[in-house]
Amino acid sequence: MAKIAIMGLGVVGGGTADLLTENREKIRAACGEYLDLKYILDIRDMPESPYRDLIVHDIAPIAEDPEVSIVAETIGGVKHAYEHTVRLLKAGKSVVTSNKQLVSEHGAELLALAKEHGCRYLFEASTGGGIPVIGPLSRDLSGNEITEISGILNGTTNYILTRMKGGGVGFETALAEAQEKGYAERDPSADVEGTDACRKISILAATAFSKLIPPARIHTEGITAIRQSDVAAAASVGAAVKLLGRAIRRGGECFVLVSPFFVPGDSPLAHVDGVYNAISVTGNYVGDVMFYGRGAGAKATASAVVADLIAAVNEGAPVPAWENAGEDFPTEFGSFSCPRYLAFAGIDRNAVRVVFGDVTFLSGAEGEVAFLTSQKTEAECADGIARLSVGGGQLLSMIRVYEIGERPEA
Amino acid sequence: MAKIAIMGLGVVGGGTADLLTENREKIRAACGEYLDLKYILDIRDMPESPYRDLIVHDIAPIAEDPEVSIVAETIGGVKHAYEHTVRLLKAGKSVVTSNKQLVSEHGAELLALAKEHGCRYLFEASTGGGIPVIGPLSRDLSGNEITEISGILNGTTNYILTRMKGGGVGFETALAEAQEKGYAERDPSADVEGTDACRKISILAATAFSKLIPPARIHTEGITAIRQSDVAAAASVGAAVKLLGRAIRRGGECFVLVSPFFVPGDSPLAHVDGVYNAISVTGNYVGDVMFYGRGAGAKATASAVVADLIAAVNEGAPVPAWENAGEDFPTEFGSFSCPRYLAFAGIDRNAVRVVFGDVTFLSGAEGEVAFLTSQKTEAECADGIARLSVGGGQLLSMIRVYEIGERPEA
Repeated sequence: MAKIAIMGLGVVGGGTADLLTENREKIRAACGEYLDLKYILDIRDMPESPYRDLIVHDIAPIAEDPEVSIVAETIGGVKHAYEHTVRLLKAGKSVVTSNKQLVSEHGAELLALAKEHGCRYLFEASTGGGIPVIGPLSRDLSGNEITEISGILNGTTNYILTRMKGGGVGFETALAEAQEKGYAERDPSADVEGTDACRKISILAATAFSKLIPPARIHTEGITAIRQSDVAAAASVGAAVKLLGRAIRRGGECFVLVSPFFVPGDSPLAHVDGVYNAISVTGNYVGDVMFYGRGAGAKATASAVVADLIAAVNEGAPVPAWENAGEDFPTEFGSFSCPRYLAFAGIDRNAVRVVFGDVTFLSGAEGEVAFLTSQKTEAECADGIARLSVGGGQLLSMIRVYEIGERPEA
Repeated sequence: MAKIAIMGLGVVGGGTADLLTENREKIRAACGEYLDLKYILDIRDMPESPYRDLIVHDIAPIAEDPEVSIVAETIGGVKHAYEHTVRLLKAGKSVVTSNKQLVSEHGAELLALAKEHGCRYLFEASTGGGIPVIGPLSRDLSGNEITEISGILNGTTNYILTRMKGGGVGFETALAEAQEKGYAERDPSADVEGTDACRKISILAATAFSKLIPPARIHTEGITAIRQSDVAAAASVGAAVKLLGRAIRRGGECFVLVSPFFVPGDSPLAHVDGVYNAISVTGNYVGDVMFYGRGAGAKATASAVVADLIAAVNEGAPVPAWENAGEDFPTEFGSFSCPRYLAFAGIDRNAVRVVFGDVTFLSGAEGEVAFLTSQKTEAECADGIARLSVGGGQLLSMIRVYEIGERPEA
């Protein structure tokens, strides 16, 4: 019987305790032994909780109990979660976490600490809620060189974009709906400005490339500037606007970014709607595979936390090592290249052709010119926008276009 | 350094040898040691192969070499593959396989043998080509009670159905195209009659429920009777016809079957086109997750074989035990219930209403009546068809309707 502890009896911690209780026999079958919950660390007493007798208010009894071999960290944030995780790993206890901020900011250091002390630091639940993706990348796809990860990593923004497409409403209205349904926080900035997706692509990129790029160094754009007419223009060519986190290795270059993209209808990512997430992974042997499911929620995220608890009991895989990425990684963003959707007011099609060459015009909103360009680097695109602005053009939208390497035939 | 062998230098065996060579360093990072290919068993000499020096024609040197700890079986079929696998497991060597026929017919026995001899029998590559699904079910989702697996498990039939929808062609034309492109065999029966999908759902159901139902006992229908007008009728209500393998646990009942289904457009399975496969898994905590990718091909399947080689080196998870399912499992198929699409000639809408009650009529082909029923068991449906036949009706098509438990909101 393995004795475990949970730190933080919030939404995910509570879901994890419930799962350990409800599926106790199923977990035993997977582990070969019971997982026995011995402590829950929380600052509150929670006299109404069925787990009240397990609650402790201090980390010491957990860190010092030799019976406890694995701890789930579902506190969130950095300060206490970081201190407790360091203490536990130094005590040789494996830690599994749902804390994307902590992993994306301190993952390299914490993995090194786990290796040094002969225990494990696991973080399936930090990315994609219940969707297995860190596990498949680390195990099932570990024979592949990973060339790309592109994912819909945030359910709130995907709900908003889905409503803007299907419901024909603007960003503000769709956001208000999401807040009403509990899919968006009252302060939605971490979601709509891309911060949450940025932390997740940082973790996915590090898992694939073994180099951790801190979120502050990842080019990140949210969806607050997306207009309903942009979403409609995408739909007019069979595409959907999606907020993607992307980590791409092309030849000697590597790019990691978060931004809205036009996703063509023949990519399965275009059909991922509502609060669902999906992560597409390309490997040099497996080709394109995609993982899809609920990216958040107590029960789904608990499924991932418990998967890591089971892995901590079962597995002897080498502990991965992440370097903290140096200044040369990723490649300077100005050379990132893709086709673009652009919308301008105050100019005509001729001006567009002069500056951007061969483009495809879309039926934009009244008084604007909307079009798709060929491949342009960030630098080339910025230059073109500047030239049209000098000619009186006012930029209304720039959205990058997602190109899939492999497409289903037929 | 782990010494390994491959049995069968065909498409998958060759891809596996290539992967081991090309991604040697990546695999070392995943295992902590090199995987060194020492023998390849094949009846041919293959003097043109880069691996010719490794070829042996007899199993003995592999089975008797104490250095060899893991063997990949990519022979296919049952006879030799079964004999060799038994011999290797009895010698304490782990075996990983892409052989769906062998696993679906003898998996319970071979897993028991592996357990007895302290080695592993792994079969990720037997289902879904390179798509990680056996691994995620066995590890990442192993804390969940699995309530349903529904998948597009055969790329040939999915290509044909995609062409019938997108290209507006009939079954025979689409099959000929698939043969021309190399997606279908000259004798396509194992694909179009559902045999291949049946083996795969047998393996998935056993992985989820620990009971192996031999393919001969699984209700299996193929796609040879699907008409272009059925596909068009599905499209008229936003659905797609897909050949699904399904394993469903509902209350005390369990059903395993392969048949064509109307899949509604709000299911991600409806958008899986061409030769791609996808497997949707529902767990009591994770909700719905889906795994998508290429279900066949040398390189993709090699990715799964190598994932199992790495797992055989790394993992100490308990070896799963499958029972051979008894007569009471699965539930008798006559009580399987779902809505139905039916098309008849020779009757009118009134006759349909009298027999099937409240139905939704679709715009069928000239001279036929096409409609969707409410939930009907197999027995109820057969009874209704019999009653309409007595009244002069000629059944043209019956296709089951896939209902998804959870749908993306918005």
